[in-house]
Amino acid sequence: MPKISLGKIATRAPRNIDKDATKKKLASICNELDDLQNLMFAEGKHSILVILQGMDASGKDGLIRDVFSTMNPQGVQVTSFKVPTAEELSHDFLWRIHEHTPAKGMIKIFNRSHYEDVLVTRVHGLIDDKTAMRRMQAINAFEQLLQQHNDTHIIKLYLHVSHEKQQERLAERMEIPEKMWKYNARDLEESKLWDKYTGYYEEVFAQCNDPEWNIIPTDHNWYKSYLVAKLLHDKMKSLKMKYPGMKK
Amino acid sequence: MPKISLGKIATRAPRNIDKDATKKKLASICNELDDLQNLMFAEGKHSILVILQGMDASGKDGLIRDVFSTMNPQGVQVTSFKVPTAEELSHDFLWRIHEHTPAKGMIKIFNRSHYEDVLVTRVHGLIDDKTAMRRMQAINAFEQLLQQHNDTHIIKLYLHVSHEKQQERLAERMEIPEKMWKYNARDLEESKLWDKYTGYYEEVFAQCNDPEWNIIPTDHNWYKSYLVAKLLHDKMKSLKMKYPGMKK
Repeated sequence: MPKISLGKIATRAPRNIDKDATKKKLASICNELDDLQNLMFAEGKHSILVILQGMDASGKDGLIRDVFSTMNPQGVQVTSFKVPTAEELSHDFLWRIHEHTPAKGMIKIFNRSHYEDVLVTRVHGLIDDKTAMRRMQAINAFEQLLQQHNDTHIIKLYLHVSHEKQQERLAERMEIPEKMWKYNARDLEESKLWDKYTGYYEEVFAQCNDPEWNIIPTDHNWYKSYLVAKLLHDKMKSLKMKYPGMKK
Repeated sequence: MPKISLGKIATRAPRNIDKDATKKKLASICNELDDLQNLMFAEGKHSILVILQGMDASGKDGLIRDVFSTMNPQGVQVTSFKVPTAEELSHDFLWRIHEHTPAKGMIKIFNRSHYEDVLVTRVHGLIDDKTAMRRMQAINAFEQLLQQHNDTHIIKLYLHVSHEKQQERLAERMEIPEKMWKYNARDLEESKLWDKYTGYYEEVFAQCNDPEWNIIPTDHNWYKSYLVAKLLHDKMKSLKMKYPGMKK
């Protein structure tokens, strides 16, 4: 697989894609997703784990709202991983993650994930390169466990925003009342570490690539949500699921 | 490493070992273990995971009582793994295990463990050889995770009882009032599967050997407890632990 170089991948929707038509397609796919999720829940054989990573203000929360809020919350769960607690730190770094992996029949979204343990920790010098490499190997073994031993289908998403768009969105958080709650002075500091984050992300894409990462251009929210909904839809369709007791 | 062949390993204490002297040594080691556990808890750096496996009536419960009951229960925990629940079965087989791995500073005893997922399940034909092999690989990766990423020291113990001694002990459960609560008609059925269990255990010893298994002769309870206490003591001594704030 050729190395993923984020600087060479577009963050915008292609020019020839129509916004309104795409939004209509998104709505129609979401309807189908609702049915597919119901089917997966009923069949109780597969599960899906969506791993959502991206820089601050790359649109993770909006994506979750756009794509997953039409589904039955009984079959869809989001776990947002924050800074680890003291108890979590007294175990291996995958301990708190494993607890939240999806049961059969469920769709789970990780809003940030175990990948932060080889990203934010590296950017801030909390772990050295050797530890990072060993963690990435441990992550690979962990993801194999989920895929091989619980029919968990992992969908890895990197929300790819441009640095300019990120700064624009962070600025909005200081200006628009409905967005102010998201403002965090630390985000501006993190934004200065853009290049470091980019380098470590590219290493993650290269080292932890089973399954491979999907790089989702995310300067346009409507395009991002459409792409992800379609990915999820195609994956679920490919599982050839059926309701228990039905012949086909 | 030469293949472990259980049939060739003694289940009894050597003839030249004195019972009373050994019991005195056990008591003295247990005193030291109490101090060492306190030190490990205070230092909060290492943890110990004792994995306890063996046929029915091989003396697992008695071992836990003999060796661990003198320690402060705040730093020692036992988890007994029974038949998985429906929720546990809806996840990968290590999901319920990972939750109970020791936090830094703690001693954890697994009374039966993830190894049952490649033993009892195989004996009863619930999984095929290929699945068993993949599970053993997953177990190896999981144990590496604990050892490399949380300073967890794993001590694997196989309590090695003779078939004759086992049957004698199972018979006691029908005769001695204080032991009747342990009687389980299924144990007698399982005892008939002795050779199958032995073969699958030997495969586990060969495939999952980092760290290696300790085969503990267990026809004599006093000898068994002494051996395990000494193993644990030597392991903890080797960690060169110190109280926080002290120079040596």
